[in-house]
Amino acid sequence: MGRSMALHLRHAEHPLVVFSRTKERARDLLEAGAEWASSPREVAERCEVACSMVGLPSDVESIYLGADGMLSAARAPRLLIDFTTSSPALARRIAEACASRGAEALDAPVSGGDVGARNASLSIMCGGTEPAFAAARPLLERLGKTIVLQGGAGAGQHTKMVNQLLIAGTMLGLAEALAYARRSGLDPAKVLESVGGGAAASWSLANLAPRVLKGDFSPGFFIEHFLKDLRIALDEARSMGLELPTAAAAERTYAALAEAGHGRSGTQAIVHAYGW
Amino acid sequence: MGRSMALHLRHAEHPLVVFSRTKERARDLLEAGAEWASSPREVAERCEVACSMVGLPSDVESIYLGADGMLSAARAPRLLIDFTTSSPALARRIAEACASRGAEALDAPVSGGDVGARNASLSIMCGGTEPAFAAARPLLERLGKTIVLQGGAGAGQHTKMVNQLLIAGTMLGLAEALAYARRSGLDPAKVLESVGGGAAASWSLANLAPRVLKGDFSPGFFIEHFLKDLRIALDEARSMGLELPTAAAAERTYAALAEAGHGRSGTQAIVHAYGW
Repeated sequence: MGRSMALHLRHAEHPLVVFSRTKERARDLLEAGAEWASSPREVAERCEVACSMVGLPSDVESIYLGADGMLSAARAPRLLIDFTTSSPALARRIAEACASRGAEALDAPVSGGDVGARNASLSIMCGGTEPAFAAARPLLERLGKTIVLQGGAGAGQHTKMVNQLLIAGTMLGLAEALAYARRSGLDPAKVLESVGGGAAASWSLANLAPRVLKGDFSPGFFIEHFLKDLRIALDEARSMGLELPTAAAAERTYAALAEAGHGRSGTQAIVHAYGW
Repeated sequence: MGRSMALHLRHAEHPLVVFSRTKERARDLLEAGAEWASSPREVAERCEVACSMVGLPSDVESIYLGADGMLSAARAPRLLIDFTTSSPALARRIAEACASRGAEALDAPVSGGDVGARNASLSIMCGGTEPAFAAARPLLERLGKTIVLQGGAGAGQHTKMVNQLLIAGTMLGLAEALAYARRSGLDPAKVLESVGGGAAASWSLANLAPRVLKGDFSPGFFIEHFLKDLRIALDEARSMGLELPTAAAAERTYAALAEAGHGRSGTQAIVHAYGW
């Protein structure tokens, strides 16, 4: 997703400096005229605005706060935007570290997947100050359609957690419903005709259930990434004293699937937990 | 819903004979020219096609198979259609009892709620023989938009259970997501702007979450009715050897709410289980 997003910026004639742990993955960008940097710190030193999109919160921590990280630069960018889905608590720590360097930070996780990144139709959920959001907005508008400042540092991440909690319940319901349909002898494809247009309708039902019926478990969204997100949400909820039994059930279900080798399947592979 | 549906038939110039345990609730229909019958048996004796829409499976059993029920009539209608959301096993028993009287039965639960009943835009999920479905179709087309024969007797009920299982997961996710949004200090209305249009989208999110935010817990769909449906689904699943932990969690959550006096609230009142 990061590559698709960076390409939109490059096509908008933004001069780009890129770093990736795997240089090969930046090839499209280098061919499109981006310059290579050898570390996050070098990106920071050469840029006014620095954007990141990585995997885990530990990766985010390392590229911002690590020995070779962006905030170790002699001169910080004026604005740092993290598109990774990551921990709200870490987003607040990064925002504080940026502020102490005179820089603005924005946590800006996205939803809309690969397709949304390619079509620049992402929903971008932002946390940070009003000035940081105003400064980032022209750039964000190259990448997404729904761009909302949800609150201070961490609020973008919290909003993304809400998004994932909604999906967690919907996917569990989808898995049980499809398992029930098959077990009771119904034709699941015909069932979708009856249930797809009413009060049971969801994006997941419309987009992922048909893939299940075709035996297509390729990712849209990787189980291992969803698992990471659920764990962040559960950690945050725990620290707020909030119990989320459905999200916890989704975490257990997806963890068992990852354990069984389905971590790189799409989230629709949840039906395997019900004998599909 | 039964009254709205019967009114559509009356407005289509069908001669109607009606029975209701509470005569007062049939007043609109009687004023529109329907005739009164004093029991389900009398309805059966006076009609070619008999339709039912009641509350619990025990009510369905009583109006079909009870001492004063439709199948106790000297002469059975040629077609009996039950629109109640009820037990698939009971639907099969009724179909057998009808067949032994030379009559056709159709289980035909609906989704789309009060609004769908008023606008004749229901999804009608049918179980029965092809001839029964063909005979019922012109009448069903007065009541709904999506009309599918899902299989033999009971298949309509099974399909409705699939619909309710989808909703169960979605509602649990919705409740946890809204609770998380509020607890983390977000503005839930603003969060809906960010999450409403992507992979987390659902009918429930679009239609019920805004009611929660307005403090509107009036029914769309009663908790006590949803609870009845979940119990049917769980009973059927148990008899098929299928475990449905999410549906079971929804049943426990809604049962506690009903216990606490929310049985006549709408299903969106599930947020009360999360301290809303």
